[in-house]
Amino acid sequence: MTPPNLTSTPCFDDRFRAELDTLLSWRRDVRRFRRDPVPRPLLAEVLQLAQLSPSVGNSQPWRFVEVASPAMRAAVKRNFAECNAEALADQAPTRARLYARLKLEGLDAAPAQLAVFCDHATTQGHGLGAKTMPEALDYSVAAMIAVLWLSARARGLGLGWVSILDPARLSADIGAPGSYKFIAYLCLGWPVEEHEAPELERAGWQERTPLGQYILHV
Amino acid sequence: MTPPNLTSTPCFDDRFRAELDTLLSWRRDVRRFRRDPVPRPLLAEVLQLAQLSPSVGNSQPWRFVEVASPAMRAAVKRNFAECNAEALADQAPTRARLYARLKLEGLDAAPAQLAVFCDHATTQGHGLGAKTMPEALDYSVAAMIAVLWLSARARGLGLGWVSILDPARLSADIGAPGSYKFIAYLCLGWPVEEHEAPELERAGWQERTPLGQYILHV
Repeated sequence: MTPPNLTSTPCFDDRFRAELDTLLSWRRDVRRFRRDPVPRPLLAEVLQLAQLSPSVGNSQPWRFVEVASPAMRAAVKRNFAECNAEALADQAPTRARLYARLKLEGLDAAPAQLAVFCDHATTQGHGLGAKTMPEALDYSVAAMIAVLWLSARARGLGLGWVSILDPARLSADIGAPGSYKFIAYLCLGWPVEEHEAPELERAGWQERTPLGQYILHV
Repeated sequence: MTPPNLTSTPCFDDRFRAELDTLLSWRRDVRRFRRDPVPRPLLAEVLQLAQLSPSVGNSQPWRFVEVASPAMRAAVKRNFAECNAEALADQAPTRARLYARLKLEGLDAAPAQLAVFCDHATTQGHGLGAKTMPEALDYSVAAMIAVLWLSARARGLGLGWVSILDPARLSADIGAPGSYKFIAYLCLGWPVEEHEAPELERAGWQERTPLGQYILHV
């Protein structure tokens, strides 16, 4: 075991914390993208940083499929359109008109698009931490996406997470191996505009609520 | 809709990005805690920052239960001990001895401990984005934990995520409402030591692997 190397331990200061808090505040789920491409080295850089994310048993179970071909992008858009029509039909009459006006994804314009899976057949980590809670593998992938999101935003890149999709159909369209569980579809690119408040808040769909009411003590 | 307020848009620079990358590198899953308490305002601050995390439909479905009573902490420790004994029994003979030596949690010393749940009965967000993928609610909670983790670490606090637990038993012990799905048990406190490499890597259990082999293109 390597001895602790305390002399080189980083010490974060108030200035850094204030900027980190600004990053968290301005992160946003982006749905309006410019069409200019994301430079390949930049995409590689943020994906590499995401490797530093926590994962159960150090399993790194995330698997990325970059969706670039027009045929596959069209399949994803059809998938979204059908799921979204069903979701609209499900909305209460009082909310349906507002729902129909929401901008929920950037599939048309986002220059980089990634389908993200969790490989439940991975042997990395030797199953540590995933026996009673195999879903911890999925949670590792979701946590990685949060890290990817912040790394991208710190470089000016916006990210949007699309979940209005039929995961079985998307996995079949992409030809994902059977052990791959679909977790998220990510749009990446340069945002058209910047906002500190979430799109769903600005559009009157859902405000943020304070934390207080959600803490119990036992 | 609020117009974009471009004049006050934050611009992150190379110095900030370098410090953010350092934070990601040194984050760590901490299992060795000092026993000094975490100041309540500091705990409140990092939980408040975690509210800025992404969540499907802006649903903020995370619910925190602070576990502080000796009886409840003892129940969590018994839960872990039994699940860990089973996990050890499951290990291949060649790995069992190493598994038995691993330090996997900080339940004895961590001054602050949180059970984190996802409320599947929440109406916040009006179901947006969670019809075809209700598991997106769970992923929102996992992503929130990644943000909480980085916010804590930027303030010198360590966090450890324990998943070697029987979630049904833990939910019953805590008396969680039926709609609450258990996601994670978090230990928080001041780390005894700092490391850039994960504990599981230093102990010879599992090294990190590079990203390259995990990207497919379609």
